[in-house]
Amino acid sequence: MRLAEYTDYTLRVLMYCADRRDQRVTIGEMAEHHGLSKNHLMKVVNDLAGQGLLETTRGRGGGVRLLKEPGDIRIGDVVRASESDFRLVECFDESTSACTLSSNCRLKHLFGTALQAYFDTLDGATLADLAAASPAPGWVKAPSSRPLPIVRPRHRLVRRSA
Amino acid sequence: MRLAEYTDYTLRVLMYCADRRDQRVTIGEMAEHHGLSKNHLMKVVNDLAGQGLLETTRGRGGGVRLLKEPGDIRIGDVVRASESDFRLVECFDESTSACTLSSNCRLKHLFGTALQAYFDTLDGATLADLAAASPAPGWVKAPSSRPLPIVRPRHRLVRRSA
Repeated sequence: MRLAEYTDYTLRVLMYCADRRDQRVTIGEMAEHHGLSKNHLMKVVNDLAGQGLLETTRGRGGGVRLLKEPGDIRIGDVVRASESDFRLVECFDESTSACTLSSNCRLKHLFGTALQAYFDTLDGATLADLAAASPAPGWVKAPSSRPLPIVRPRHRLVRRSA
Repeated sequence: MRLAEYTDYTLRVLMYCADRRDQRVTIGEMAEHHGLSKNHLMKVVNDLAGQGLLETTRGRGGGVRLLKEPGDIRIGDVVRASESDFRLVECFDESTSACTLSSNCRLKHLFGTALQAYFDTLDGATLADLAAASPAPGWVKAPSSRPLPIVRPRHRLVRRSA
C-alpha cells in the first residue's frame, strides 16, 4: 500500500514553490535540490500547470510559480488528481475482477470507507499547512487508543505527540 | 495507491473460511472458487496458519479451517500483517530517501495521520462483519459533505447509502 512516486514529487514541487512565493523557481533548481531528474519534474510541472496550480514562463527570467494561494490548495485534491490507481482490492476494478463473491461484497464497502477516512484527513490540510514557515497545522490528530500500524523498521511511521 | 494483491487474496481466504465454519475447506476448492492459482493460495494459507488464524490438516478429510471466531479477527490487523510497504511518501523510508526537505517535514506527519485514519476504519471491522450471513456492519460511515475521491471510471468507488 503505497503512494506513487509521482505524487510524492508533485507534493514536493508544490511545497518548494510555496516556500518561495516571491520568486520564480526553475525546474533545474528543483531537480538539483531534490536530487531528481529534470525530466521527471518537467512532467510534474506540466501537469500542475494544466491543473491551473502553476504558471510556467519560458525564456530568460522565466520559471515556475504558484498560481493559487497555498491556503486554497487542498492536499486531498492534489493526491486525487495525481494518483491513478485506487484499486485497494481487486473488485474495485470491475473490468478485470475475477472475484466470485457477491457483488454486494462488504469488503469493497469497508475499503471504500477507509479510503474516505484517509482523504478526509488529507482534505483537512492545505499546502499552507505544509509550508515551512506556517504555524502548527490543525490536522494533528488526538492520540488514539488504537495501536499504530506495525510496519517494518525501515518504514517506521514517526508520530509527533499532539 | 493500492493494496497488494496478496492482501486481497488473504482477505478472500479468510472470508471463504468464515462463511464455511462448519466444514474444512481445501486450497483447491478456494483456488477454483476464486479463479486463482493454488500456489498463490498455499502461501496465503501458510502465512495465516503461522499467524494462528487458520488450522491446516493434511491427508484424507483434511483441509483448512478458521481457528478464531470471525468476530475476534480485526481487518486492520490482517492488513497490517499482510502488507509490507506503507511507504506513502519517499521520506517514510529513511534508508533510501533523497529528500532534502527538513527532517521535520509536515508531509510525513500528514500522511501518517491519514494512514492512521485509514486503519481506524479497518480496526472497526472484524471478519464477522464481512461474512455473508452477518447483520449489517457497524462501520458504515455517516455521509460526509466532502466529495468522494475522483477516480478514473474503471476504478470508480461504489458507495452504499448509509
